Amino acid sequence: MNINVLSLFPPMFEGVFSQSIMKKAQDKGAVKLSVVDIREFADNKRQVDDYPFGGGAGMVLKPEPIFNAVESLAEVKNPRVILMCPQGERFTQKKAEELAKEEELIFICGHYEGYDERIREHLVTDEISIGDFVLTGGELAAMTVIDSVVRLLPGVLGNADSPVRDSFSTGLLEHPQYTRPANFRGWTVPEVLTSGNHGKVDHWREEQALKRTLERRPDLLEEIELTPSQQKILDGLKK
Amino acid sequence: MNINVLSLFPPMFEGVFSQSIMKKAQDKGAVKLSVVDIREFADNKRQVDDYPFGGGAGMVLKPEPIFNAVESLAEVKNPRVILMCPQGERFTQKKAEELAKEEELIFICGHYEGYDERIREHLVTDEISIGDFVLTGGELAAMTVIDSVVRLLPGVLGNADSPVRDSFSTGLLEHPQYTRPANFRGWTVPEVLTSGNHGKVDHWREEQALKRTLERRPDLLEEIELTPSQQKILDGLKK
Repeated sequence: MNINVLSLFPPMFEGVFSQSIMKKAQDKGAVKLSVVDIREFADNKRQVDDYPFGGGAGMVLKPEPIFNAVESLAEVKNPRVILMCPQGERFTQKKAEELAKEEELIFICGHYEGYDERIREHLVTDEISIGDFVLTGGELAAMTVIDSVVRLLPGVLGNADSPVRDSFSTGLLEHPQYTRPANFRGWTVPEVLTSGNHGKVDHWREEQALKRTLERRPDLLEEIELTPSQQKILDGLKK
Repeated sequence: MNINVLSLFPPMFEGVFSQSIMKKAQDKGAVKLSVVDIREFADNKRQVDDYPFGGGAGMVLKPEPIFNAVESLAEVKNPRVILMCPQGERFTQKKAEELAKEEELIFICGHYEGYDERIREHLVTDEISIGDFVLTGGELAAMTVIDSVVRLLPGVLGNADSPVRDSFSTGLLEHPQYTRPANFRGWTVPEVLTSGNHGKVDHWREEQALKRTLERRPDLLEEIELTPSQQKILDGLKK
């Protein structure tokens, strides 16, 4: 996969793109990550934003530099062009899986500024938000989307990195985990986990996953189909 | 404000913490940002994770290094200790505003691993998730929360950086913005914005903000109290 990011602050990406899974994915050739400065595609004055028509505070990203950048970077015909913005659709794991199937992704990150509407109307294919909170720019949101997409690419995650029970993959929140020491400051591990009885361990974990989901995210329970044994546990928990 | 981050990949933070608003905030003394390697607080073998009791794939972060790190870093009594994890409460702007009032925040970032449950039970004060998607680690989620908190600290945003109409501050999505050129590739700016009639501009923007919110995020309309004139516009849009 080929990923290009347009940003006014390319150095923001250096740490994240050079560590951990992101580094491994590039070393393995699963992804090529490039960050380009939007200013390089602006006119002589390197002007990327301007005052809004109709007045008001804040600056607005001009259309030309963004169109120029996308058109000169795109390697495939009609690549996905993703605008990071608070008005976009909420990012989910399902969207990550969808994007992971593409050959090329281009991300546009604004910074304080708004975007000229013509970028939305005539250039971008997807507008994505990672949540209802205000960030200084689209960079962290883009890195978040990119991380979740890249780790899904074939060959990127080795077995060691790939927990069998990724959150959301079962539709339930994960059950509590414990590791050594069995007694830490007097707080001990639940006995069942050191019992050696695998059937009991599995049952305890399923019960705990259901309990945690019921307490914290009951909305998730409405989206999945429970097995008869899960339903029985859940009915017991609700009492 | 004093912010400490515990991570297994401290270099991930370098780009984000050295640019833009995050850099300005530190230069102005509004925030002190430190990232520490969890391994520094582990035993001789620098072992930070171990196999889960009860078996299964994946590793679990051990309690000692995390407790040691938090206890040695905390400068105030009972600081907020924030665990980034998918099971946490969903991060919102309201939570950012709440955290911005604290003197000290400590963030714990896992990486692939789960957390020993005793960390949750006996050390952390807040568990936060930025959304229903799987990330390689808590680092990007922590940076996201930190960015949204730091920009709220007094004196951090100058007027130039501070749009009057931050997304979510009015409760509506932002209206479309346009800047020069008025005609770009034949796509022109709506006439009202170049009319010089401020009353009409304001009305158009309010109508567009309501229209966009109705189309994309009708849930937001249920959370705010509309003015009589907004309600009238909305009723018209719904027809």
